[in-house]
Amino acid sequence: MLYHLSNLIPYAPWTVFRYVTFRCAGAAVTALLLSLFLGPRVIGWLRDLKFRQNYRPKDVMAGADATAAAADIAKRGTPTMGGILIVLVLDLSVLLWAQWNAHVLLTALSLVVLAGLGFYDDWLKVTKQDSAGSSSRIKLAVQFALALAIGLYLWRLPSTESLVADIQIPFLKNPVLVGVPAVGIVMVMLTIVGSSNAVNLTDGMDGLAIGCTLITASVMVIMTYIAGNAVFAKYLLVPHVPGAGELTVVCSALVGASLGFLWFNCHPAEVFMGDTGSLALGGALGIMAVLIHQPLVLVIAGGVFVAEALSVLIQVGWFKFTRRRYGVGRRIFLMSPLHHHFRKKGWPESKIVTRFYIVAMLCAVVALSSLKVR
Amino acid sequence: MLYHLSNLIPYAPWTVFRYVTFRCAGAAVTALLLSLFLGPRVIGWLRDLKFRQNYRPKDVMAGADATAAAADIAKRGTPTMGGILIVLVLDLSVLLWAQWNAHVLLTALSLVVLAGLGFYDDWLKVTKQDSAGSSSRIKLAVQFALALAIGLYLWRLPSTESLVADIQIPFLKNPVLVGVPAVGIVMVMLTIVGSSNAVNLTDGMDGLAIGCTLITASVMVIMTYIAGNAVFAKYLLVPHVPGAGELTVVCSALVGASLGFLWFNCHPAEVFMGDTGSLALGGALGIMAVLIHQPLVLVIAGGVFVAEALSVLIQVGWFKFTRRRYGVGRRIFLMSPLHHHFRKKGWPESKIVTRFYIVAMLCAVVALSSLKVR
Repeated sequence: MLYHLSNLIPYAPWTVFRYVTFRCAGAAVTALLLSLFLGPRVIGWLRDLKFRQNYRPKDVMAGADATAAAADIAKRGTPTMGGILIVLVLDLSVLLWAQWNAHVLLTALSLVVLAGLGFYDDWLKVTKQDSAGSSSRIKLAVQFALALAIGLYLWRLPSTESLVADIQIPFLKNPVLVGVPAVGIVMVMLTIVGSSNAVNLTDGMDGLAIGCTLITASVMVIMTYIAGNAVFAKYLLVPHVPGAGELTVVCSALVGASLGFLWFNCHPAEVFMGDTGSLALGGALGIMAVLIHQPLVLVIAGGVFVAEALSVLIQVGWFKFTRRRYGVGRRIFLMSPLHHHFRKKGWPESKIVTRFYIVAMLCAVVALSSLKVR
Repeated sequence: MLYHLSNLIPYAPWTVFRYVTFRCAGAAVTALLLSLFLGPRVIGWLRDLKFRQNYRPKDVMAGADATAAAADIAKRGTPTMGGILIVLVLDLSVLLWAQWNAHVLLTALSLVVLAGLGFYDDWLKVTKQDSAGSSSRIKLAVQFALALAIGLYLWRLPSTESLVADIQIPFLKNPVLVGVPAVGIVMVMLTIVGSSNAVNLTDGMDGLAIGCTLITASVMVIMTYIAGNAVFAKYLLVPHVPGAGELTVVCSALVGASLGFLWFNCHPAEVFMGDTGSLALGGALGIMAVLIHQPLVLVIAGGVFVAEALSVLIQVGWFKFTRRRYGVGRRIFLMSPLHHHFRKKGWPESKIVTRFYIVAMLCAVVALSSLKVR
C-alpha cells in the first residue's frame, strides 16, 4: 500500500517507499513489532476460548513413553492455533508494504486458505478431543486443489508459460528441458503440498517449526530478490520473473512474523502454531518457490523439513513393508518424525531444537552456494 | 591457501577458488564441520585437564539468590575455555580459504593474542578458584595495546590513512570529517576494546554469546563484502577498502565456527567458551569493523552486546553515585549484565536466550537497512 501511496506523492522522502530493499526492512520490522503487540492479546483470546489441544506426538504407531508423557503433560493448557497470529500479522504487513501484484496477492490469499484449512483441522481436534483431526483425505484434497490452481495459473501466465515445462536443477547451469507442461504442473503441485505437510510434520517441539521457517524464509528473501532483478537473474543464470521482487517483501514479512512468533513460541512455549500455522507457512514457502520456478532450491534450503517428512515416509513405509513380509512391523527410527527419534535417544528438547536450527542453517548455506556454483 | 593454489593451477575447475563467494561458503562449511569433528575431542581434553570453573554471575555486587545458585550448581563440571576450539577452527578455516592479505593475517593473529589473554584469565580463575581472574588492569592494558597497534597500522596504511580521520555515521550520507587522526585512532581503540569486553559480559548463559556473535557476524559478512567490492561500495556510499573482500571469508568462517560451537554450547551446555572465546570473538568483530571503517555499524548490529555492556556501566555507575550521595548504593537493574536482570524477573533461561537472539536479529536488520537509507 505504501508503494502505491508513494506513487501518488512523488516527492522525497516518500520516494524511498519505491525501493524494494527499504520496504523489505519495513515489512520485517512491522511484522515483528505487530507480533509483539498483538501476541499477548491473541494468546489470551485463544486461551479464553479454551482452544486447547493436548499435545501429542504425531506418530500413531509408537506409544508415548514415560518421559514423553511427562513432557506432554507440561504442555497441556498451552493454547494452539497460534498460526492465526502469524498469518494475520504477515498478511497485514504484506498488504502495507508490498506492491499488490498477482504474485503477492496469490501468496497472501493462499496463506488464508491454508490457515483456514489448518484451523478447521485444529478445531476438530479440540472439539472432538481427537488428535487425528479431520480426515487426511479432506486435507490433502484441498491442498491439491489449491496447488493445481496455482500450477494452472503459472502455466497460463504468458511470462512464465514456457518456464513451467522446464525444471531448474540447482548446481546445473541449464534447466532440464522437459517440454511437457503436465510434468511441470505436477512438480508445482508436489512442491506446494509437500512443503505444506513437511512443515506440519516438523511442528512438534517448542520453536522448531517456526525457527526452521525463519531460516528457510531468509534464503527465500535472497532467492526472490535475485529472481526479481533482471541483472542479477541473468548474471546468476536463474529465471527472471518480473514482479518477484515483491515476493522479497513477502519473505521479509515472513522473517519478521516468524521472529515475532518465536518470541512466544520459544521454550517453554506460551502458544503453539498448530496446523493453522504450519500448513499455511509450509504452503507459502512452496508457493513462492514455484512462483520463481526454483522448487528444488527449496528442497535444499528446507532440508530439515524434507528430512522430517522423509523420516515419516520411511518409517511408515518400512513398517508396512516388514509387516506384510515378516508378519511383524519393524521400525528404522525409534520414533518419527525425526525430532522424536532424538528425544527417544535422550537428547534434551532444547538441544534437539538448536541442533536442527544449525542443520537448517547449513542447508541454507548450501542452497545459496548453488547460485554461484553452476 | 586454496586461493593461492588456484593461481598456480589456472585451469577449471580450480579457478572456482578465486571467487570470494565460493570461498565464503567453503570457509563456513569447513569451520562448521571441523567444529563438529574436533568438538568432542577438545571438550574431552578440557574435561580431562580439569580445566573447570565454577560458573558464577559476573556482577560482584549482587549475591546469587537461591534460583541462581541452583542453576549454578547444575553448571559445575562443565569445562570452560571452549574458545580454544572456536579460535582453532576459525584460524584453520581462514588460512585454508582466505587470501593471506594483511587484513586477514591481522585479524587471525589478533584472535590468537586475545584468546591467549582470555586463556590466561580463565587459567587464573581455575587454578586460584578465583572468579575475579587476572587483574582487570592487565587485561585492559593488553587490549588497549593491541587496539593501539591496529589504530596506528590503519593510520599509516597509505590506502586508508585519510579514512581514519573521518567517522562514518550510519544513516548519514557523508562521513563526519574530523580530520584529526588522533580522534580516529581513539575511536578504533574504543571499538576494539569495547567490543571485546561487551561480548565477554554477554557470555553468561548457554548459547547466548555465541548465538549473538553468529548474528552479528552474518551482518559483517555482508558489510565486508560490500566494502571490498568497488562497485557496491560506491553505489552504497561506504568506504571502499581493497582486500576487505577477504574479510568476508573470515566472517563466513566465523559464522561456521559459531554454528559449530553452538552445537555443543546450546542448553544444556557441554562446554563454555570462557574468556578465551569471548575476548577473541568480540575483538575480531571490532577489528573487522574498524578495518572497513564502519565501527558505528557494529554498534547497531551488535546492539545486544552494547546493551549488556551498558547495563553493567549504568548499574555500577549508579550504584557508586548513589552510595556517595545517599550513603547507600542503589540499583537500576535487579542484576547486571542485563540477561541476569531477566533471570531475576523469573524468565526461564531458554526464553531469555531466544528473545535476546530475536532482538539481535532486529538489530541486524536495522544495521543492514542503514546501508540503503542515507
